[in-house]
Amino acid sequence: MSEWFETADGILSKVWGTLGRGVADAKHPARRPTFATVSTDGWPEARTVVLRTADRASGMLTVHTDLYSDKIKSLQASPRAALHIWDAKQDLQIRLQAEVVIDTGAATRALWDKIPDHAQQSYGVTPSPGTPIETALDYVKEPDPDTFAVLHCTITTIDAVHLGTDHRRVSFSRVGHWQGQWLSP
Amino acid sequence: MSEWFETADGILSKVWGTLGRGVADAKHPARRPTFATVSTDGWPEARTVVLRTADRASGMLTVHTDLYSDKIKSLQASPRAALHIWDAKQDLQIRLQAEVVIDTGAATRALWDKIPDHAQQSYGVTPSPGTPIETALDYVKEPDPDTFAVLHCTITTIDAVHLGTDHRRVSFSRVGHWQGQWLSP
Repeated sequence: MSEWFETADGILSKVWGTLGRGVADAKHPARRPTFATVSTDGWPEARTVVLRTADRASGMLTVHTDLYSDKIKSLQASPRAALHIWDAKQDLQIRLQAEVVIDTGAATRALWDKIPDHAQQSYGVTPSPGTPIETALDYVKEPDPDTFAVLHCTITTIDAVHLGTDHRRVSFSRVGHWQGQWLSP
Repeated sequence: MSEWFETADGILSKVWGTLGRGVADAKHPARRPTFATVSTDGWPEARTVVLRTADRASGMLTVHTDLYSDKIKSLQASPRAALHIWDAKQDLQIRLQAEVVIDTGAATRALWDKIPDHAQQSYGVTPSPGTPIETALDYVKEPDPDTFAVLHCTITTIDAVHLGTDHRRVSFSRVGHWQGQWLSP
């Protein structure tokens, strides 16, 4: 019986299992990936997001955000994201590249209606996110479905590193039909 | 007596205190920031790094890496990084932008000589990182000072968010002499 990290398929299953845990468990490290984009002036940007869905069959993830956040401006110019998860308990680093489609307005209304009131508070702030304000609390949160955006992330590559006694690194790509390719770590 | 997150100076001190903890404590979340760059083909990239030094007076951080890693290629083309830390215990997200200078060769030799043998193992792998290999362990680690690189990160902006009962977001910049500017969260 081999360990999960000894085969490429074992690692791929662990990656998707980890993403699934992140969706289901608010305390799991995969709940809050780091989401990197390229700004309109060419700088890398990184921030925490909350992983909402992860579907292995389609190779897609979703994340929710405020339509007026900086990441939307960046994604409108360059619709590519890198997602990063470090799961210390499993010694597993997951790096994903994804193409991102932004859904908003009517397309998201059915989903919005299912979001609990307290969570709707995350979407809709005046002035919009990143606006300079005089004092720390000079803003008003008012749930607004018109500021709710869903980021549909179509994964193009997965790079996983297991940092055990030995280091094992493997990549998977959509164009390669998710066949594992071992890489020097 | 105010809480640390109620003043911009309090948050800035907490940011530097957190970075210092990351340098000193291998178990602290600030030990392993996510380090985002832009690849030569314009994709965002993100991976875990280990924070080696953090100096508030100069506003600089250092990170060590393998000279043949993908982040070096990216930084040679675009010497800008975003560093990201999520400290769940403090409900604190730290986002940094930094300009990066790569030191290698003779400039790093004195530092290399101080690195313990087991840690030198992280620098020098054949074939070089990211090269496709036949099976998972088809590589050799051999410490090689010529593959050791130090990334000197000169912070240009700090964006900190405290996600307490209220959300507080503040930015600091080198050009603004690290004076805090509250932002809508």
